[in-house]
Amino acid sequence: MLSSLTLPVSLPIRQGEITLRRATIDDLDELMRLLSDDAVSASRGDRNDDSDRALYAQALREIIEDPSNDIVVGTESDGRVVATLQLTLIPGLARRGATRLLVEAVRVAADERSRGIGEAMMRWVMDIATRHTGADLVQLTSDSTRLDAHRFYMRLGFVDSHVGFKYRVGA
Amino acid sequence: MLSSLTLPVSLPIRQGEITLRRATIDDLDELMRLLSDDAVSASRGDRNDDSDRALYAQALREIIEDPSNDIVVGTESDGRVVATLQLTLIPGLARRGATRLLVEAVRVAADERSRGIGEAMMRWVMDIATRHTGADLVQLTSDSTRLDAHRFYMRLGFVDSHVGFKYRVGA
Repeated sequence: MLSSLTLPVSLPIRQGEITLRRATIDDLDELMRLLSDDAVSASRGDRNDDSDRALYAQALREIIEDPSNDIVVGTESDGRVVATLQLTLIPGLARRGATRLLVEAVRVAADERSRGIGEAMMRWVMDIATRHTGADLVQLTSDSTRLDAHRFYMRLGFVDSHVGFKYRVGA
Repeated sequence: MLSSLTLPVSLPIRQGEITLRRATIDDLDELMRLLSDDAVSASRGDRNDDSDRALYAQALREIIEDPSNDIVVGTESDGRVVATLQLTLIPGLARRGATRLLVEAVRVAADERSRGIGEAMMRWVMDIATRHTGADLVQLTSDSTRLDAHRFYMRLGFVDSHVGFKYRVGA
C-alpha cells in the first residue's frame, strides 16, 4: 500500500463521477475479470480461470502489503468495479535523482469504455498521485499493438520516447 | 536493498572478470560520473555537477534503504567502479500474478565498453537475480535513439514488444 496516497477520491467523468479507492482482497474476482477482458492480456495468460485464483490472490496480497505498491480500482456509485491500475513508487538516481511512479495493468471494463474513466484515472495519477508521493516522472509501457492506447497517452501529455523490452524467465 | 540477492559475485568477461556488489553511499562520485558519461543522460540533466550532489546522495540513500530496490556496481580487480544498474522488484497481477524485475539506469564507463561487461551484468540479472528474487519477467525501457542498446538487448533474448511512455511532472 502506498500510504501517501489520499484515497478514496471521487473524480468527475463525462457523465457523473467515478470513485477511486484502494483494492482489497475482496476485489479479486473483479480484478481477474478486468485483467482478462482484453485480447492482448488473454493472449499472455490472463484468462479469468478459476484454477489460477490462488496465483492472483497471492499476488494481490503481496501488492497490498508492499509499501511501494498499490492497486487502485475505479467504482461506480453502486459499488461496481469498472477499472483498475497498479502504481509502483521507485526511487532513482538518473535524471538528477528523480523518483518515478510506474503505472502497470491499466484496464477499463470493455462495456464502460469511451466514458472518460481511463482519462480521469490517468489525470489523477499525473496530477495528484505524483504530488502525494513526490514523484517527478510517471512512466508506463504499452504493448506495441495498442495503437489507440498510444494516442490516448500522448494526448494526455506522455512522450513515446522509449522502447520497452521484456524477457520472460524460462521462455 | 534487495536482500534476496547473493552479492558480491564474480563474473567472467571476455578478458578477466568483473565483480558485482551492492552500491554504498561511498560510491556516489563514481555513480554520478557513470550516469553523466553518456550524451542521452547528460541531455536529461545528469551532468556530474557538484551542485547536484545532495540530490543524488539523497536518492542513493533512499534506494539503499528500500527493500524493493538495489543499485549494483561492477568493479575491476583494483576496485574501480566501471558499470552500474538499478533493480526494482515489483509484485503484479497481470500475466497470472507475475513478479517483475525492472532494470533502470544501466551504464558502463565509456572507456570500458565492448569488453562484455554489460552483457555479463545483464545475463546475471536474467539468469541469477531472477532466480534469487523469484521474478518471472525482466523488463526495461531504452531511449528510442539508443539503437545499439536495442540490438544488444534483443541479442540477449529480450523482446521489443512495448512502447515506453514518460511524463515529466511540471514539464
